[in-house]
Amino acid sequence: MPRLRVHNFTISLDGYAAGPEQSRDHPLGIGGSRLHEWAFPAEPRDPDTGENIDARFAAEREDGIGATIMGRNMFGPIRGDWGDSDWKGWWGDEPPFGHPVFVLTHHGHPPIPMAGGTTFHFVTDGFRSALERAFAVAGGADVAIGGGAATVQQYLAAGLIDEVHLVIAPILLGGGERLFDHLDGGPHGYECTELVSSAAVTHIRLARVR
Amino acid sequence: MPRLRVHNFTISLDGYAAGPEQSRDHPLGIGGSRLHEWAFPAEPRDPDTGENIDARFAAEREDGIGATIMGRNMFGPIRGDWGDSDWKGWWGDEPPFGHPVFVLTHHGHPPIPMAGGTTFHFVTDGFRSALERAFAVAGGADVAIGGGAATVQQYLAAGLIDEVHLVIAPILLGGGERLFDHLDGGPHGYECTELVSSAAVTHIRLARVR
Repeated sequence: MPRLRVHNFTISLDGYAAGPEQSRDHPLGIGGSRLHEWAFPAEPRDPDTGENIDARFAAEREDGIGATIMGRNMFGPIRGDWGDSDWKGWWGDEPPFGHPVFVLTHHGHPPIPMAGGTTFHFVTDGFRSALERAFAVAGGADVAIGGGAATVQQYLAAGLIDEVHLVIAPILLGGGERLFDHLDGGPHGYECTELVSSAAVTHIRLARVR
Repeated sequence: MPRLRVHNFTISLDGYAAGPEQSRDHPLGIGGSRLHEWAFPAEPRDPDTGENIDARFAAEREDGIGATIMGRNMFGPIRGDWGDSDWKGWWGDEPPFGHPVFVLTHHGHPPIPMAGGTTFHFVTDGFRSALERAFAVAGGADVAIGGGAATVQQYLAAGLIDEVHLVIAPILLGGGERLFDHLDGGPHGYECTELVSSAAVTHIRLARVR
């Protein structure tokens, strides 16, 4: 059965997936880009083990994923109606996805085909509809939730996510958007199946208990 | 210079230092006791390294501490006036501290001397006063903040803590009391100086940047 997965989702010690005051200049909020420094290491191998723990986890994001879902705020900084915006995402002419990407939004927008196999589709009829469309085009492969926090939260609360690879960066952001919030006592039914730290961060795999 | 330290302070993945609905039967809230299972391992040595990472960190709590400060809710489940309560803490006749313990409270109480060198003192004139008294009796040794979350928060917000050993247990509590909350964009001025995971938990050392 194809699964719904989250990879490389990074939070700070104080639980924030993005810092305060997100904007076009600071898409991850103030200080938020520090969350992802682990994915671009100066020294790629662990000095003790010679293994590249961070790269091993990061690469799973590419493995067996046929479609991605993301929230509109992850796609871009524009709020409300799209107007005459020609915004095509943060990722340049050839986004790294290489498959269909479904963007959750309240405002319709024609699909945006990009180089390299990525097409951005805009879904206005809800997160469950996006999930159905994503699985339909993934051709039997898994679907990834790209983010941000509110989008992952929405699917977690509905119990729809099979696996979460959570990364904890040992920094304090002091504010911003929390992953584990608005979950009404949840998420329920997940257990940790892997816990390992590199020199930079802690990797945690949460799997849905079946 | 003697330092103010926090050790073995454990939070869940969703950031809670205690679960919801704390009570006499559940001093750490529903599910909260699972936070501390790492300190009582069935298998004390890491299968890969043969090292006992958890025990190494846990033992630092005893190392060079001359006094402990804790919040009233950590001392016991009684709220408001003490009345004719003969409550002497959760730790039995011979508490493991072996030094003076200062309990922050709004309600005065005579000191309670216990076996093994622990005496509980009750401080009604504020957390800074407790700190002065603790350092005064510690005889040049360090002082520990025992907890709970609100007490650590109070000293963190005031920038008084020199070192925090934070433990992240890979469980989800879904609610309760968060360490990193009510800190008004902080805590400021701390950096991670150590990050390591055992098979059970992640250990993080935060030190105040001087």
